[in-house]
Amino acid sequence: MDNRAVLTDYVRRMTGALMNSGVTAVVISPGSRSTPLAYAFASTENLDVYMQVDERSAAYFALGLAKASRNPVVLLCTSGTAASNYHPAITEAYYARIPLVVITADRPHELREVGAPQAIDQIRMYGNHVKYSFDFPLAEDNSDIDDFIDRHISRALAVATSTPYGPVHLNVPFREPLLINFEREAPIATFHKRITGSVVLDASTRQQITNLLSKSEKGIIIAGEMPVDLDKKTFWKFAEALNWPVLCDPLSNLRAEVPSSCTELCIDQYDALLKSSMFCGQAVPDTVIRFGAQPVSKPLSLFLKKVRPSTVLAVDESPEFRDSLGVVTHHIQASPEAVFGVVVDKPRTSYMELWAVANNKATAITDRYEGVIGNEGIYAKLLFEHLPNGSDLVSGSSMPIRDVDTFFRKTTKDISIFTNRGTNGIDGVVSTAFGIQVARKRKAWLLIGDLSFLHDVNGLIVSRFHEMDLTIVVINNDGGGIFSYLPQAESGNYFEELFGTPTGLTFDHLAAMYDAQYAAVKTPEVFSEELRRPKNKPVRIIEVFTNRQVNVKAHRDLWTQITERLDQHE
Amino acid sequence: MDNRAVLTDYVRRMTGALMNSGVTAVVISPGSRSTPLAYAFASTENLDVYMQVDERSAAYFALGLAKASRNPVVLLCTSGTAASNYHPAITEAYYARIPLVVITADRPHELREVGAPQAIDQIRMYGNHVKYSFDFPLAEDNSDIDDFIDRHISRALAVATSTPYGPVHLNVPFREPLLINFEREAPIATFHKRITGSVVLDASTRQQITNLLSKSEKGIIIAGEMPVDLDKKTFWKFAEALNWPVLCDPLSNLRAEVPSSCTELCIDQYDALLKSSMFCGQAVPDTVIRFGAQPVSKPLSLFLKKVRPSTVLAVDESPEFRDSLGVVTHHIQASPEAVFGVVVDKPRTSYMELWAVANNKATAITDRYEGVIGNEGIYAKLLFEHLPNGSDLVSGSSMPIRDVDTFFRKTTKDISIFTNRGTNGIDGVVSTAFGIQVARKRKAWLLIGDLSFLHDVNGLIVSRFHEMDLTIVVINNDGGGIFSYLPQAESGNYFEELFGTPTGLTFDHLAAMYDAQYAAVKTPEVFSEELRRPKNKPVRIIEVFTNRQVNVKAHRDLWTQITERLDQHE
Repeated sequence: MDNRAVLTDYVRRMTGALMNSGVTAVVISPGSRSTPLAYAFASTENLDVYMQVDERSAAYFALGLAKASRNPVVLLCTSGTAASNYHPAITEAYYARIPLVVITADRPHELREVGAPQAIDQIRMYGNHVKYSFDFPLAEDNSDIDDFIDRHISRALAVATSTPYGPVHLNVPFREPLLINFEREAPIATFHKRITGSVVLDASTRQQITNLLSKSEKGIIIAGEMPVDLDKKTFWKFAEALNWPVLCDPLSNLRAEVPSSCTELCIDQYDALLKSSMFCGQAVPDTVIRFGAQPVSKPLSLFLKKVRPSTVLAVDESPEFRDSLGVVTHHIQASPEAVFGVVVDKPRTSYMELWAVANNKATAITDRYEGVIGNEGIYAKLLFEHLPNGSDLVSGSSMPIRDVDTFFRKTTKDISIFTNRGTNGIDGVVSTAFGIQVARKRKAWLLIGDLSFLHDVNGLIVSRFHEMDLTIVVINNDGGGIFSYLPQAESGNYFEELFGTPTGLTFDHLAAMYDAQYAAVKTPEVFSEELRRPKNKPVRIIEVFTNRQVNVKAHRDLWTQITERLDQHE
Repeated sequence: MDNRAVLTDYVRRMTGALMNSGVTAVVISPGSRSTPLAYAFASTENLDVYMQVDERSAAYFALGLAKASRNPVVLLCTSGTAASNYHPAITEAYYARIPLVVITADRPHELREVGAPQAIDQIRMYGNHVKYSFDFPLAEDNSDIDDFIDRHISRALAVATSTPYGPVHLNVPFREPLLINFEREAPIATFHKRITGSVVLDASTRQQITNLLSKSEKGIIIAGEMPVDLDKKTFWKFAEALNWPVLCDPLSNLRAEVPSSCTELCIDQYDALLKSSMFCGQAVPDTVIRFGAQPVSKPLSLFLKKVRPSTVLAVDESPEFRDSLGVVTHHIQASPEAVFGVVVDKPRTSYMELWAVANNKATAITDRYEGVIGNEGIYAKLLFEHLPNGSDLVSGSSMPIRDVDTFFRKTTKDISIFTNRGTNGIDGVVSTAFGIQVARKRKAWLLIGDLSFLHDVNGLIVSRFHEMDLTIVVINNDGGGIFSYLPQAESGNYFEELFGTPTGLTFDHLAAMYDAQYAAVKTPEVFSEELRRPKNKPVRIIEVFTNRQVNVKAHRDLWTQITERLDQHE
């Protein structure tokens, strides 16, 4: 076989094996060394190929696609610092348990470590932030190698999509010339099918869990972030049988599509409730069962750390279960769904009543909340009220997710909420949102702060190459809003220089650059009007101007109102 | 001592030890976990503190500062993906041999690998792309630790600034509370002074080099990229004695401030000359001595690889000497300056004459070059002619540096040229340019392509916090211009989608966003006018619209003219 045929077969095998392992989308950044695989992907049917010039944004876009689709997504770039730019999203994917398949094209051995251009040491370059890393051989006319390629791609994909899911890295060297033969028929691959049934709990484990739940008199369920395709119905059956309050993190997506029989069980105001020390005193649980990641709410964390319930079950598929509070007493290594099957019927208690009543009191106050000019929470509230059935919201880290926690209330509407909570970075959020929108194919909103938006303005580049449908609500408080809640803000020293970092930037010009629909908003009234205005461009930016100082005060005022209401003996 | 005092002393020791090791500048990205060190830096006198919100750009800005100042520069960020964003610039720094001191704040051990927010595995997270990585202990009231901190910071800095220079990583955990006591007097550190004289060659090594150079009849000197503070006078004494042609890469900075006695020796048109196979046949050397990195010119590389001169000396301080062509016969492990001292007097030869005559012929053609509308080289030429004595030019990778190679001619003017050639990335170039301008404190220009500019638009953020003085000439050919020179362009398949990637973006709105002076240019005449127009804002963007197809043709036409002229027997 000639070299071009050998190279063609090699990349066609890779593409075939990837697709057989469930890959349906590839995100490519332009480059020369990656040419053979880029060609193979571009000329493959039934594969969505996306282009993004900035590799950092490309990786976060792929992360969004994988997060929303629950399928492994391939990233492809050339050799050199292009690969280093993937690192932030890979880190997030590792901790958020998202299956990215990172392919870095490399120089052949004779051009490594000799000062060749765009040649860096790419072997295991993402260290402990990938689950698996493999350096492939060059294309070769050798049937042992052929078979090896097929099998090894499948193996890497199996690692990426075994619990806990996560990123894998394939380093693939290519020697020039880099052209392939488009006419050549793809080789027939030797596939071995991967058989993975669903894992179920054995009888003794079920009994153990049943015993732990049965003996509790004051139990709560905590639902943290879980995959978007979670079986909600089975969850609510589990909760309804227990008759326990369910503290639903916004990212559990269990605040949406709540069955009418479970409305009372669904506690969505715990972040405010647990700011009251009187309520905390009354609400001490003896047992907690947590599904998914640890919740966003800091008051909830402080509460658990303080009261240290005697039994805390964490259901987590990974041996590296999440417990930054150090309160977990039993780690159930299983999928949430497997544990939902452990139905334990219990009667309604006064403890449940306590949570439901308090939640209603807080809700009454939050519902009346109108905020003041410059405050941010009101915009999250208005956005939540506006979001139609069947839409998605992506939230930035820092302030936005906290406002979502407070103002995104339980509902029968189908609204899913996404954010990057693997590492809580403010980076890559715009790209993640685009990835989610494209994978979900429905209306999407992004609620994001000005610094986070600025960090990933290059996320917008993807909208120059592909059809997108996203409304971005940028809360512009001219700097890092979250820092205003920290003791650093009170000390005053160097605060604005080191933490506030006001850039003075606005995003009207940026919207013009990217031909996005734009509106500047300074009051809740104007925001409501804007939400009602039709969207007429693929990307829409609503820039909301707020004030960091006013915002801190307004939030604290709301929480004080709720605390005072709870502390009243009526 | 109370905790705050202990923490204060700890970070004050770090700051003191860093400054004693030659640090004069710190680049900080806002974050909470890094607060104690951020405070310590901000409140230290005689330390330049720069803020940049985007950590990727921050690291490239620090790289520029360190490259131009030749001092180690500190980077500081919070824990989590902030640290991952440093990876691209760290990779470049490693291969470009730039002393960055990367400090990543971390969570204490009890918050690692337990799912705590913004906590990732930061231990050795940059893998083989740093020279040294160390995980510091928490602040502690313990005199052994005190002394250890001082010494270990000095040790890390010694590694960063030993040849070959490079980045080091210090991971520093902090436990809450994170505030320090600004009133507290800094502790007295126990410093050990580092004594490093200059390394000189012993007599036998000098003799060996002298013998190798003496026996040659057709020798050439290749000057690649070397540090900006190179002793040019000693270099030219070395070259003048040998009387050999000096092939000066633009990044050697030896095309500028050429002593009048050496003008003929300085060959600046070799890239064009070596495209002529007739000239290549005549110019075969028996001996080559190369200083610094491998040159930009591809024809020069192909020439050396083809003719394989019998003696090729590479002067490189690192044991990992650069030789991607595999032609080096002798690696002299020494600083360039040490070898410049080996003066070998030789007579002028006809071989030298051959190069000088050919260089003059090519120059005559390049000088007359006017290009056509849509061509890019003419803008590099006009920019070069315009640059005043005492200014700096930063060049993007890909096309810009190649046009600089062709059109930046030898001169008596003091003009320094910088680019990121450690890994030749198109990323981070805007930030690098700002860092260079700030360190050099003189007028700076950046010549950059549209994709590279777009990749680091966030480099502009630093101009919101600090005084900058940069003119950015963006060559906008709407996509990746360099790919048009590759075989991929000729094959036609998927070319625009995968390689051209035209975004259709222009930068007028971006200029407005950052309050930069702006002009759009479509012809060389208008460009000349713009260069003459006074600069009236800290940042100026001149956007030059060109055409990728026209550009390839125009470049090829110029090279054909030169080749034909060389091939004429007169």
